[in-house]
Amino acid sequence: MTTGGDAPTAATVELLGVLAYGELSAFDRLAEDARAAPTLAGRAQLSTMAAAEIGHFRLIEDHLGRSGIAVADAMAPFVALIDSYHASTAPRSWLESLVKAYLGDGLGADFYREVAGWVDPGTGDLVQRVLADTGHSAFAEREVQAACAANPAQRDRLALWGRRLLGEAVTHAQRVVAERDELAEFIVLGSGEKGGVAGLIRTVQTAHGRRMGRLGLS
Amino acid sequence: MTTGGDAPTAATVELLGVLAYGELSAFDRLAEDARAAPTLAGRAQLSTMAAAEIGHFRLIEDHLGRSGIAVADAMAPFVALIDSYHASTAPRSWLESLVKAYLGDGLGADFYREVAGWVDPGTGDLVQRVLADTGHSAFAEREVQAACAANPAQRDRLALWGRRLLGEAVTHAQRVVAERDELAEFIVLGSGEKGGVAGLIRTVQTAHGRRMGRLGLS
Repeated sequence: MTTGGDAPTAATVELLGVLAYGELSAFDRLAEDARAAPTLAGRAQLSTMAAAEIGHFRLIEDHLGRSGIAVADAMAPFVALIDSYHASTAPRSWLESLVKAYLGDGLGADFYREVAGWVDPGTGDLVQRVLADTGHSAFAEREVQAACAANPAQRDRLALWGRRLLGEAVTHAQRVVAERDELAEFIVLGSGEKGGVAGLIRTVQTAHGRRMGRLGLS
Repeated sequence: MTTGGDAPTAATVELLGVLAYGELSAFDRLAEDARAAPTLAGRAQLSTMAAAEIGHFRLIEDHLGRSGIAVADAMAPFVALIDSYHASTAPRSWLESLVKAYLGDGLGADFYREVAGWVDPGTGDLVQRVLADTGHSAFAEREVQAACAANPAQRDRLALWGRRLLGEAVTHAQRVVAERDELAEFIVLGSGEKGGVAGLIRTVQTAHGRRMGRLGLS
């Protein structure tokens, strides 16, 4: 193993592993959902979001690779739990796909933003580069807003869906943390200043609520 | 419609439409095949190839957009035929997926390279930018070579598969041209210097044969 002077800690490798598999699995699900788009334009837009996830994945892969760590090894512990999250939140319609893509993109960005200050400077730069490349989901905002304005029953169903997505994300995140002691300690230490894990969850809930509002679902 | 001084001709719009849907559908199929990868590393590599197709798709989308043309409109005439090509060449194994990804990537590059000289300078620049971003399939070369070296029966099956892929690609390309008069005329005129359509097909066959050799399938 070739390590530079700043080999990432075990907890940072776990963090990057969970983020990398989050990106790779999001790519896979967005690509699958894109296939069910009602228009070619919608299909192209969701496919573009999927491709952006791979851009982020490759930044993490390169970053780990510079320390001689294979991204596949770093991701392996998180595959089953993240796959379980996606299995429990498989969209049944194009609008559910858009809501999931939009809210998932935002949740991911929240998480990157929170951890940016907890990691070594090299990893912090990586996180900033990923964050600078988010925001590909504005089209989802327009499409969901338009569909909800036209149909209040649709709006209510999608609002439930949006709340369920947050619930499943939090439940699955708690299961990841429960299984990975070093990652748990890292998050507890990192989030300490802002009220610990409970504070972190509140931050994410507040941001999720704002995004629901932008979709017309609050 | 806002057009610059160099609005693309109808034939160029058709050419860019067929290329754009070629990229979007390749993204979709590669993403689907990536899901069946036997390893996380293989899945990440095929997913990365898929994402590169979207990069090319977006270059075409932006290029058409500058002339006020929606890429979805330009692609629409070609969806059924390109989908039919993919349906007739759905891989049944990971190695078939890799062979299709590798040979398809090469065929696409051949086609871009040939048309680069026939189009207006602005479109020619676009084609060069796409070509500069090919070559994401070297990993497929290694995996297919290794599998064939270990198993001659496998090699024979994959060699048949590689020949069938070229046959289906040529058949479907001929159907596209038969249905689109302006595109046909454009290709006949463009390829004139190099022996016309028959010369173009020979060039593609020769390059395909070289790629089969690099996979260990000649």
